[in-house]
Amino acid sequence: MSAPAKRRIVLLGATGSIGESTLRVIRANPEKLELVGVAASRNAEKLFQICREFGVRHAALAEDTGAVAAPPGTTVYRGADGPEALAALPDADIVLVAVVGTAGLRPALAAIAARKTLALASKEILVLAGKFVLAAARASGSRLLPVDSEHNAVFQCLEGHRVSDVRRVLLTASGGAFRDWPVEKLAGATPADALRHPNWSMGPKVTVDSATLANKGLELIEAQWLFGLSPGQCDAVLHAQSIVHCIVEFTDGAMLTQLSPPSMTFPIQHALLYPERAPASIETPLGLEKPLALDFRPVDLGRFPCLRLAREAMTAAGTAPAVFNAANEVAVAAFLAGRLPFLAIPRIIEHTLGAVKLIEPTTLDQVLAVDAEARRLAQDFSTQSK
Amino acid sequence: MSAPAKRRIVLLGATGSIGESTLRVIRANPEKLELVGVAASRNAEKLFQICREFGVRHAALAEDTGAVAAPPGTTVYRGADGPEALAALPDADIVLVAVVGTAGLRPALAAIAARKTLALASKEILVLAGKFVLAAARASGSRLLPVDSEHNAVFQCLEGHRVSDVRRVLLTASGGAFRDWPVEKLAGATPADALRHPNWSMGPKVTVDSATLANKGLELIEAQWLFGLSPGQCDAVLHAQSIVHCIVEFTDGAMLTQLSPPSMTFPIQHALLYPERAPASIETPLGLEKPLALDFRPVDLGRFPCLRLAREAMTAAGTAPAVFNAANEVAVAAFLAGRLPFLAIPRIIEHTLGAVKLIEPTTLDQVLAVDAEARRLAQDFSTQSK
Repeated sequence: MSAPAKRRIVLLGATGSIGESTLRVIRANPEKLELVGVAASRNAEKLFQICREFGVRHAALAEDTGAVAAPPGTTVYRGADGPEALAALPDADIVLVAVVGTAGLRPALAAIAARKTLALASKEILVLAGKFVLAAARASGSRLLPVDSEHNAVFQCLEGHRVSDVRRVLLTASGGAFRDWPVEKLAGATPADALRHPNWSMGPKVTVDSATLANKGLELIEAQWLFGLSPGQCDAVLHAQSIVHCIVEFTDGAMLTQLSPPSMTFPIQHALLYPERAPASIETPLGLEKPLALDFRPVDLGRFPCLRLAREAMTAAGTAPAVFNAANEVAVAAFLAGRLPFLAIPRIIEHTLGAVKLIEPTTLDQVLAVDAEARRLAQDFSTQSK
Repeated sequence: MSAPAKRRIVLLGATGSIGESTLRVIRANPEKLELVGVAASRNAEKLFQICREFGVRHAALAEDTGAVAAPPGTTVYRGADGPEALAALPDADIVLVAVVGTAGLRPALAAIAARKTLALASKEILVLAGKFVLAAARASGSRLLPVDSEHNAVFQCLEGHRVSDVRRVLLTASGGAFRDWPVEKLAGATPADALRHPNWSMGPKVTVDSATLANKGLELIEAQWLFGLSPGQCDAVLHAQSIVHCIVEFTDGAMLTQLSPPSMTFPIQHALLYPERAPASIETPLGLEKPLALDFRPVDLGRFPCLRLAREAMTAAGTAPAVFNAANEVAVAAFLAGRLPFLAIPRIIEHTLGAVKLIEPTTLDQVLAVDAEARRLAQDFSTQSK
């Protein structure tokens, strides 16, 4: 009997936080998963170390200084087009896109065009281009698998059920670093304060987005595309423990929820092995040998104006989600650099949403042009807000 | 366009608590559900009132005094065989068995033989005859739909997933009236104390079973049969709020749970309309507009020896679960009649389990003989314990 074929994986964003968790999943499943391509923007040393460990044949490095030598047997793709080439590699089955920002957009579409399974960990892809990505996936028959813990949870809850029977999908939000701060103290919140996430260990941009709930807003927009929901069917609920990742409410009043410890190895392992399940978890599962308390409370949109703005952008549709995302990125970068106070983040977003003309884009280039315009305007507003 | 065919329902146990909830579900879905047969043991007035309201053509009344006149148009089946005849009615699609005790056994098998969908609300059916019921359903192609809130919840969580990927199924238990009593006070617990269930409104036998967790033990045995699990895969967890009805843990560490308010209309409506879902719940759904706290803690088997005994019976298999059930019924009846103290319930069960020879039954008659013997012995032990 021949051994079953391994899933061959291309990992875009191999040196980041999701990349590291993905490598743990691949290490734990050597008979099921094989890494055939990896991409990073600039950390050559770490990328080539991954190539050595996993025997990776294809590596893309956008900004290569040439200072670090690639291992023999690894072909290196340099420049901005590398990830796209990797996404279309003939010997890949799954392309996991975990690239920060809009850089994941074209590789994701290249993976779909090449009929790969697309495992999605980059929020920007659906927030900016949900319409194009979904249409392309329908046309090519590519499957989209969500890797974000919340969306992966919804995917698990909807398996075997009909989306037409869904009343609402609630994504849980920890509430981030400031969930219990007095609202009047938020004006003085520093980057160091915002980076103290109570449950998850993530990059700085995402951690600030967790503190503003902009993150949850982006996830609601993603959920809408992934599961074919209307804006009114997607909402967030505060859940301090980050153990329940979603609540799917059906029309008949039944709710299904998915639980796992707050670590990305759970959803990543699920997505990479789907529709099989791993025989064991990589990290200790929840267990119920000790008491467990799970709390939920509604989101106070006064405390979290970024979520309100995201929902407004989701309802406005068209390019509004892209503008929300661009303005938020600019504002968070300025906040992290100490150039803006915490409460300026929603102000910049609101100004930018009001200033960029809303269109229903027909090409990806139009979206990218709006994204660029929104960034320029947000930058201007940031400078004026100093 | 012709109207879609209605599901034609036979309801055995129409005048009890589950029966009442089932009638609410049928009332709420007049275009989808039709009541064609009802059975009760002795409440003629209530049964015939149901026949009048729903235009039911077939009614079975086991103990008919003839004092109440049946409505015109309703054929009345008298005696113990009535429910079996109803279960095999040619114009029935679903037979919902909500009969207390072993009386539901033969009607359930008759429904399966007649290739009806069997909606199960009577614990005894699978606890005594799981082996025979499952074999008969496999042979006839009948579908079993669980109506108990916990099993219905597991059914919903497993939909679309593979049982081979399940690590454990945990059924939640409120812990009943005594979950927070000091253990040393339990010796003095009265029937009135035991009947104060914190969350569910049910009959007295089931309410006492909730206080001893014998109920949960019976449900674990049912779950084993319904979902093809091993005894080690079925466990209980305390959950005071009775909102989460089960936790299904998969091998990869993901857990799925089902939530609905503690009312039987939710699982009954699900089972009767399956695989569709109703467009609305009959009672107010959970919502998450207010804070919600959900607590879980392990079961202390010292406080709940009936659960330990049920698990031992489940592991011993053969006729042991039937003996557990019979002894428990006798002991609870004696306790409710004031003839036995609360803590005698597990003692009677343990004595009886030790006294009845364990066999692997090959006929239903063997099971019923063991059931009768266990009742006799338990009765003797009860009299001696006075």
